[in-house]
Amino acid sequence: MDTASEVIHRCRLLAECTEEPGHITRTFLSSPMRDVHAMVRAWMEDAGLEVRVDAVGNIRGTIGPAPRIMIGSHLDTVPHAGAFDGILGVMMGIALSRCGRAMEVVGFSEEEGVRFGIPFIGSRALVGDPVMDAGVLDAVRAYGLDPAELPGAMIGDEVSAYLEFHIEQGPVLEQMGLPVAVVDAISGQSRYDVTFRGRANHAGTTPMFGRSDALAAAAEWILEVEKLARDTPHLTATVGRLEVEPNATNVIAGEVRASLDVRSGSDSVRAAAAGRMLAATSRRLMSVSYRQRMDQAAVPMNAQLVEKLGQFTPHRMSSGAGHDAMILARKVPAVMLFLRSPGGISHHPDENVLVSDVAAALAAGKQFLEAL
Amino acid sequence: MDTASEVIHRCRLLAECTEEPGHITRTFLSSPMRDVHAMVRAWMEDAGLEVRVDAVGNIRGTIGPAPRIMIGSHLDTVPHAGAFDGILGVMMGIALSRCGRAMEVVGFSEEEGVRFGIPFIGSRALVGDPVMDAGVLDAVRAYGLDPAELPGAMIGDEVSAYLEFHIEQGPVLEQMGLPVAVVDAISGQSRYDVTFRGRANHAGTTPMFGRSDALAAAAEWILEVEKLARDTPHLTATVGRLEVEPNATNVIAGEVRASLDVRSGSDSVRAAAAGRMLAATSRRLMSVSYRQRMDQAAVPMNAQLVEKLGQFTPHRMSSGAGHDAMILARKVPAVMLFLRSPGGISHHPDENVLVSDVAAALAAGKQFLEAL
Repeated sequence: MDTASEVIHRCRLLAECTEEPGHITRTFLSSPMRDVHAMVRAWMEDAGLEVRVDAVGNIRGTIGPAPRIMIGSHLDTVPHAGAFDGILGVMMGIALSRCGRAMEVVGFSEEEGVRFGIPFIGSRALVGDPVMDAGVLDAVRAYGLDPAELPGAMIGDEVSAYLEFHIEQGPVLEQMGLPVAVVDAISGQSRYDVTFRGRANHAGTTPMFGRSDALAAAAEWILEVEKLARDTPHLTATVGRLEVEPNATNVIAGEVRASLDVRSGSDSVRAAAAGRMLAATSRRLMSVSYRQRMDQAAVPMNAQLVEKLGQFTPHRMSSGAGHDAMILARKVPAVMLFLRSPGGISHHPDENVLVSDVAAALAAGKQFLEAL
Repeated sequence: MDTASEVIHRCRLLAECTEEPGHITRTFLSSPMRDVHAMVRAWMEDAGLEVRVDAVGNIRGTIGPAPRIMIGSHLDTVPHAGAFDGILGVMMGIALSRCGRAMEVVGFSEEEGVRFGIPFIGSRALVGDPVMDAGVLDAVRAYGLDPAELPGAMIGDEVSAYLEFHIEQGPVLEQMGLPVAVVDAISGQSRYDVTFRGRANHAGTTPMFGRSDALAAAAEWILEVEKLARDTPHLTATVGRLEVEPNATNVIAGEVRASLDVRSGSDSVRAAAAGRMLAATSRRLMSVSYRQRMDQAAVPMNAQLVEKLGQFTPHRMSSGAGHDAMILARKVPAVMLFLRSPGGISHHPDENVLVSDVAAALAAGKQFLEAL
């Protein structure tokens, strides 16, 4: 079997390790993670890596003397996931560990934030910011690990750089007909809860004029958000959640709570757009309030690594989703390579990756490692 | 105490009969309805009426020889109701029964449709269309009544006309500075469920162009419905219910189910407007489907009675809500008189009525009865 096919085959094998038969669901330190660790350990040892599981359940294999380049991604999944999100990046690392470069391959125990509502439990331990939530620590102990050894999971000078392969999880590369792209930044995110307060009233007895319809006001704002986002390059904005009170066919909506999610690789573009979107809530004479739920700065990837990897994969893009690379970037130069997502599909059983795209990513990775 | 104040006082006393202490909640043949029957019977007998409770729990008092004019409304409430919706019309009937006219006063056991999701259980028995739902009949038996006697609840030639006093439940009379108005028609209603089917996708990784956002499509349609309704005289249209899938901050909405409620005193106006509103769902390239849930024709009140009552209360309006009068109109000439709703508020503890408006309604009713 060629290496690319083997990488895909291994991802499919790991997909059998699940909490829910018939689905791929594998949360932080859940029981199927033991099988994943056993299989990943075997493949790592076959490749000549020296393997350990650190105190937060990350499986880590090293080869060659420090300083080493780290290649990794995560081994957990969302509920009813596909076979490649995260896992592919770990299998790519194992495949590339045979290329003769000093290397550490890591499979993070947690990135998705499903089990405890806290993402990046795995990678945060490597940068000296371990999650100290009581539930997380109980899960660590229940898995047979010792939280007292968390400091030993931290990386230092022995890691010179971090490279992460990941499926794009969006339609951009497919639309452009490209197999892979260098990620030059991970987008910053603003999230808000916006509440429109009108007057609930009888749908039949309240004339059209004089209504204070919170849903109509929210609808006008949703279109304004969409228009502003379309008019702003390198920005996405989404109203994905709406709660209507009382949400009855024959009652004019008295209150609507909406979410707003704004992302951009540029923090100034994001801040300006979010400001305009919040200002656009005032189009009707209605009480509106909002609360910021998230303000996460964009994380640029290391410029030299982007440049170097870009020699072998010319297209550059920013990532609209968060990844372990943005945690690792706090401590070491980090870069990512995206692989095309057929249909733009992820977090879904139909999530896929093309053999030829994996081959292209392996080739680019190999050239990059040799050029470092 | 003057009669108007007494009418209001009696409504407040009946409000104490509730299934939920601290709230006014009194559904079809619930236990507090026994106390209501006892109090209403006492007031009816004081006024010289001969009282019975029919087989569906309507309390009915007659005075004078047939043919009689019937005055009534309902004694049940929505959950957490006010003190006047329905009840006021029964108390008005008792007050007017002293004016010397042959009369039947009726307090219907059910109009709101809360307990079994079926409205008009009380009045439907009078027009020979009793509700034969098994749950309803069980409730009838549990209250100590006999469904076999339902035919005895029907009205015949002994009832010459039906008059119902009711709070407006809307802001129109208050905005016009009027105490009362004659109702010339009860609006017809169309209800639809409309479903927009887009593509759920990651809010961060899916660029603005190429999205198929079901919530943005629904928002555009909601504004179009509002605009069409504002541009159409004598029409209301409301999107009051919206269900978003998956309804998550970071996921573009894949599906939105919306309700549409269209009402008018004119069936042709309503049908034309509903058609334009459904056509407006096609503004975006997105799969849209709809299902009609209700198509209820407008019910005109009896023209001669409207004319006669209009001699004493010049303003005329249509009712956007359904009332027992639209059921009675199937068998006898029927008319309604609306009383101003302060703040347009109903189905709420703050529901109210002004003493001077009750006095105006009593005066108009008295003149009307004398002129008949």
